[in-house]
Amino acid sequence: MFVDQIAMNKVIVLYRRPSGKAVQGDFKLIFEPVPVADDGEILLKTRFVSVDPYLRGRMNDKPSYVPPFKLNKPLQSAIIAEVIDSNDTRFKIGDMVCGNLEWKEYQVATGKGLQLIQTADIYLTAYLGILGMTGLTACLGLTEIGRPKPGETLVISGAAGAVGSVVGQIGKIMGCRVVGIAGSDQKVKLLKSKFNFDEAINYKTTMDLRGAIKTVCPDGVDIYFDNVGGKISDDVLNYINKYARIVVCGAISMYNETSRVLGPYVQPSLVSKSALMQGFIVSDFADQFPATKKQLFKWLMDGKLSYHETILEGFERIPQAFIGLFEGNNEGKMIVKV
Amino acid sequence: MFVDQIAMNKVIVLYRRPSGKAVQGDFKLIFEPVPVADDGEILLKTRFVSVDPYLRGRMNDKPSYVPPFKLNKPLQSAIIAEVIDSNDTRFKIGDMVCGNLEWKEYQVATGKGLQLIQTADIYLTAYLGILGMTGLTACLGLTEIGRPKPGETLVISGAAGAVGSVVGQIGKIMGCRVVGIAGSDQKVKLLKSKFNFDEAINYKTTMDLRGAIKTVCPDGVDIYFDNVGGKISDDVLNYINKYARIVVCGAISMYNETSRVLGPYVQPSLVSKSALMQGFIVSDFADQFPATKKQLFKWLMDGKLSYHETILEGFERIPQAFIGLFEGNNEGKMIVKV
Repeated sequence: MFVDQIAMNKVIVLYRRPSGKAVQGDFKLIFEPVPVADDGEILLKTRFVSVDPYLRGRMNDKPSYVPPFKLNKPLQSAIIAEVIDSNDTRFKIGDMVCGNLEWKEYQVATGKGLQLIQTADIYLTAYLGILGMTGLTACLGLTEIGRPKPGETLVISGAAGAVGSVVGQIGKIMGCRVVGIAGSDQKVKLLKSKFNFDEAINYKTTMDLRGAIKTVCPDGVDIYFDNVGGKISDDVLNYINKYARIVVCGAISMYNETSRVLGPYVQPSLVSKSALMQGFIVSDFADQFPATKKQLFKWLMDGKLSYHETILEGFERIPQAFIGLFEGNNEGKMIVKV
Repeated sequence: MFVDQIAMNKVIVLYRRPSGKAVQGDFKLIFEPVPVADDGEILLKTRFVSVDPYLRGRMNDKPSYVPPFKLNKPLQSAIIAEVIDSNDTRFKIGDMVCGNLEWKEYQVATGKGLQLIQTADIYLTAYLGILGMTGLTACLGLTEIGRPKPGETLVISGAAGAVGSVVGQIGKIMGCRVVGIAGSDQKVKLLKSKFNFDEAINYKTTMDLRGAIKTVCPDGVDIYFDNVGGKISDDVLNYINKYARIVVCGAISMYNETSRVLGPYVQPSLVSKSALMQGFIVSDFADQFPATKKQLFKWLMDGKLSYHETILEGFERIPQAFIGLFEGNNEGKMIVKV
């Protein structure tokens, strides 16, 4: 044990449920003693923390596909941590693990649900993104619901985000014409230069988004991978083709709304185009995770996928990183380095 | 030729495109000479005319999955007609045919697209309804998109209409618990007594439709067969189960709207339940028509399906019958007898 047992541990708890957009005051940094690994347990030191838009839903006191966070308890997300003490023969000091862990600088855990990660060939943080839930979401959402065919037009909202930027690249691998919608000129540039998108639109500066979509999708939209919802999606739905598939992966534009937002009904568009709109939750496809991770790893090694991160440093900045997701502060995956 | 060639023929044309709800003044009865069957043609006398909600869409000057009607040209729908003169060896005088024909008392046609119908075992008008597009829509929409499993809860809007009343009965055959939403106490009674629905709700007299749906669907909604759209559908969507399927077959509540109607976004419900919402157009499934018709015929013969019609008499009343669809004047299939 090289951790001083009377050293204080930093922990971030949910202090208040956000009303609308989360603010710093909804979170609280508390201090408690660094814990000790008991029989069969390991002691972990947090290295990298993933923040993701879906966490906003867990901050509401409302049942959803994941249970809500509890008040005054630590929040959780995907974390890469280093084993610094171990009473479990499967883990040795210095090993790196990845799993759904608490927002604590130090924590004890059993090995359950933890993945030992290899750092030889790949950035460590890739396991929080392209080789983690982000990559799985992008790949399985696109292939299982979007079912891309070569030559089809794929439109992605939130295209420069963690999931969107991977969806577009996989769309290109599969032979689609790929169009991204994002919220800054810099993101648009990134999509075209680094991620190989055919076209990209800055929805914040485009006066006529609907017209812009029409211009860059002269053959209509076959697949719409939707991360944002709201008005952007209304506009895209105007140009869907017969048998279009709409992957509803997220609705970041609506996560902070305190009442139900109104928009044009989608049903008439769906009927007139025999189109499909389906909600996607990655955990429904758990049986395909191993094969999909292998595929993603291969694409990454072959240089077919690029990976982009926005990294903030400092444990205390986890709330700031999370809040920034809703201000479009990230390009690619948002991560906090501890 | 037993038709007097200087006799006048009644024809109903689209005189004006309806703005909102169609009114009598949008249609015009004109007279023209009864035509003569040329080489290879047959002369038909209209016997029964089907009017259907989807025709409203064709009255707008807007491309959809069927082309718009032309102004001052006859409207069209599914019609049963009698062959009264024939220059085509496949048809003899007295034969009954069914096809997509014009709103004319007499018309010439080639045999193309016409089905010779057998009247031995079945009501003639069944070919406009349960053995026609209505039955095919109900059966294929439910099985191909709804994919019912025994024990699941199936909710149907517009349940007492032509399609809805067949969907419910097929749902019962397939072992579902079936709940109908309709617009009068008489329809509710009909659904439970004649069509074997487990529960039915009169949405017009129920103060709290959402609560009523919850009460009659204690295990939630697995399949929602939607003929009406709008607020009724918003309420049903509150109770969908994980992996629910929503068959968007029609949106009669919205067909007459002159601007795009707003409602709560469906995307959050679809994501949180991994649910599917898909537009259904029966013509996409044409390769399955023969087998499906055979199945429907068998169920009808076996007494497993009941059939209900609302019949108006008189060629001139076709517009009235059509307009009545949007006032909920029909129970089951709406037909005009000429």
